[in-house]
Amino acid sequence: MRERTWRAKTRPRHPRHPQRDLQRERHNDAVILYGWHTVTAALANPARRIRRLLATENAVRRLADEGLALPQHLEMVRPDAIAARLTPDAVHQGLLAEADPLPSPEVETLPAAGIVLVLDQITDPHNVGAILRTAAAFAAGAIVVTARHSPEATGVLAKSASGALELVPIVTVQNLARGLAALKERGFLVVGLDSEAADELAALPLQAPLALVLGAEGKGLRQGTRAVCDRLARLDLPGAIKSLNVSNAAALALYIASRAVG
Amino acid sequence: MRERTWRAKTRPRHPRHPQRDLQRERHNDAVILYGWHTVTAALANPARRIRRLLATENAVRRLADEGLALPQHLEMVRPDAIAARLTPDAVHQGLLAEADPLPSPEVETLPAAGIVLVLDQITDPHNVGAILRTAAAFAAGAIVVTARHSPEATGVLAKSASGALELVPIVTVQNLARGLAALKERGFLVVGLDSEAADELAALPLQAPLALVLGAEGKGLRQGTRAVCDRLARLDLPGAIKSLNVSNAAALALYIASRAVG
Repeated sequence: MRERTWRAKTRPRHPRHPQRDLQRERHNDAVILYGWHTVTAALANPARRIRRLLATENAVRRLADEGLALPQHLEMVRPDAIAARLTPDAVHQGLLAEADPLPSPEVETLPAAGIVLVLDQITDPHNVGAILRTAAAFAAGAIVVTARHSPEATGVLAKSASGALELVPIVTVQNLARGLAALKERGFLVVGLDSEAADELAALPLQAPLALVLGAEGKGLRQGTRAVCDRLARLDLPGAIKSLNVSNAAALALYIASRAVG
Repeated sequence: MRERTWRAKTRPRHPRHPQRDLQRERHNDAVILYGWHTVTAALANPARRIRRLLATENAVRRLADEGLALPQHLEMVRPDAIAARLTPDAVHQGLLAEADPLPSPEVETLPAAGIVLVLDQITDPHNVGAILRTAAAFAAGAIVVTARHSPEATGVLAKSASGALELVPIVTVQNLARGLAALKERGFLVVGLDSEAADELAALPLQAPLALVLGAEGKGLRQGTRAVCDRLARLDLPGAIKSLNVSNAAALALYIASRAVG
């Protein structure tokens, strides 16, 4: 049963970006991890099962030099063999792992402490990866995402996360409004970021546990998401442009909130 | 003479990303601007000469509805005709303009006021575009970049900048250490971001005019850049990951510095 649920959650959705298909093994639901930070973080994560590691001779030497344990299924290959699995602009640094996806915890199991980020249908894998990385840098407790209209935790997202995929749990919910309601029941203050909001985030009385909700660029928060937030807040932007790239907005919101809740 | 210098500065360098070639007219140094915010900001910029605008019927209607002046060379086309000029994942929203590049001002002409960002060989056009957008949101005075190892101000960069290319001047310098020295002579405090620095940016005595220098991910600031900085500073990151995506780092640095210098 567990296995079935998990597979359902990790099935490909919305293949808007053709390169994501290349970077995913659809026949067996493996995730593809490439790049030094991404793969070494996976090797160091006891919860991550590596099915197979492709590594160049240089990368194997570097792994050994840094005392990193090598997985059982290691294949030494030429850089071309790794590049052939990825898009031309992918920087793989001699490492590519096929791995099991990590389990997605339930909202109900999240500790009611600190800060979690909630992403309302943010689809770009570079942005979601950068947000994960920044979340790990600010010790956020989790990222909550929607099952639909969210990128897979593989490939470009994993590379952009630079190892953070192994550090920050991703909670996938079918219905975001219900997920937020569950957080509120557990004591979370739920604050939605909205460039049109009357209040500035830095001026709000924030407290942990805190959930910061970010919407997709252009669309913003959906009406149902907005309705369930305790407060809406904007970032104070003094210049001519009033909205940021969503990962930049997440970084500022995390910084402001981290200082406010200690 | 002016024309010649300008062309030399805008010639393609380092075509690492094949899609950038697609999005650039090499035979005549035009830049390609696509997407609603990017193109409408260019139409509204009196300094930007639009050579030709391709627009779908819907986009033309929307431009008219919003009272935007249409350029002389407008061609109404089907969405496919625009898509064919771009990579498959490019979101063009029915608008593509071919335009002259904007002139690059000299360091010596920058007002000695406020905050400028300096990018030490940051190559990714998504990141540089996001940094421009955030710079516009914080009313930064300019972005200083190196002539080599910087992406062209076209295509993906322009799209990621979401109109900010028309708002924030890009100063291109041949030698960054000399460019920083010129800023120092003009009274700028030059602070380099470095994750290994002893001091936190938020704890430094900052003052305007201020230049914040960011290095490429992985490599950081080059030795020659570092040597010319007045101070080095890090961002305070309490979590397990100690470095951010460079555009996220730029956003935090701008936020912290904007508050400090008023």
